[in-house]
Amino acid sequence: MPRFAIIGHKASTSPDFSLNDMPGGAGRIDIMCRCINTSFFLSHDLRHDVECFLILKGGEQTKTLRFSGDTIRSLNPDERSGGALIKKGLSKPAGEEFVKAADGIHIRSAGLEKLLGEYSFAVLDENGTDIRNAEMLPANFILSDHMNFTEEENELIKDLPKYSVGPRVLHADHTITVLLNEFDRRQNK
Amino acid sequence: MPRFAIIGHKASTSPDFSLNDMPGGAGRIDIMCRCINTSFFLSHDLRHDVECFLILKGGEQTKTLRFSGDTIRSLNPDERSGGALIKKGLSKPAGEEFVKAADGIHIRSAGLEKLLGEYSFAVLDENGTDIRNAEMLPANFILSDHMNFTEEENELIKDLPKYSVGPRVLHADHTITVLLNEFDRRQNK
Repeated sequence: MPRFAIIGHKASTSPDFSLNDMPGGAGRIDIMCRCINTSFFLSHDLRHDVECFLILKGGEQTKTLRFSGDTIRSLNPDERSGGALIKKGLSKPAGEEFVKAADGIHIRSAGLEKLLGEYSFAVLDENGTDIRNAEMLPANFILSDHMNFTEEENELIKDLPKYSVGPRVLHADHTITVLLNEFDRRQNK
Repeated sequence: MPRFAIIGHKASTSPDFSLNDMPGGAGRIDIMCRCINTSFFLSHDLRHDVECFLILKGGEQTKTLRFSGDTIRSLNPDERSGGALIKKGLSKPAGEEFVKAADGIHIRSAGLEKLLGEYSFAVLDENGTDIRNAEMLPANFILSDHMNFTEEENELIKDLPKYSVGPRVLHADHTITVLLNEFDRRQNK
């Protein structure tokens, strides 16, 4: 099952953001919305075998939202709809372990370190192995929003395998699209 | 120069739509916004060598907006910003030939047929040649929004070369991302 974890360095951990100002007041929640879109949407279908983790760091306590393709409901491709689902997820009080906030949406108060203890992740790096040349493609990838990984994050991920999606550095959501296209092609062989 | 033309079958040709209801009242203008995003955005850069044509058919008279990467200004990746630029483009009265509505944005009252007379296009088709196997990649692609090509459109494009981006059918914006990744790789060789 492909899993994508996207770090939103300034992304709101409170549901009180405005859907009309997601790039501003919500700390680039718009990037998170686009990553949900590219993780799940096919033409007239959803990718039921994908999980998408949003690691939201724009609050006192980091929160992680998990979106699961097998159980998600009411997901529409536009950013406002994605933002509305994120608000719904953030409305549920978060504890140490994942609790259900809505169908296919779970929340907990934890961040990257906990997630790294649960799954084997790879990271995107322009100097990494080209995914087309990888003998086996890793299932799980960590991506960053518009900001670079912090020093602390770099320390956590420094030993993870590094991959690139091509000669140009892409937005996180576009990177997910290219990764899933490579998954699709390998599954189809 | 890669060119993408996306047909918005119900997309508003009037600037009077609400940025809060782009999937509904505006006739899926949200899809057009995402196609602008994926046509132009790189990480911390724009693709200056791309043109994106939005063929908007949700009005009495079809209108075409041309977005040019070499001159576009004030482009932000979120859907609302894309929608605001589309509104700006549509605010300019449209005649038979392209007139400038804003930096990098031109408008005219015409549709697919006129555009086909100006450039050689290819179309996306799940049974087409896989882009990875194409000896030469066409520069220009026509895509559709959430609806299939109409009978009239199919008649216009029936003899165009057909390509596929892989084993699964993707949204138009995701298709553009995969196409540009293939362009990037070929340019880099």
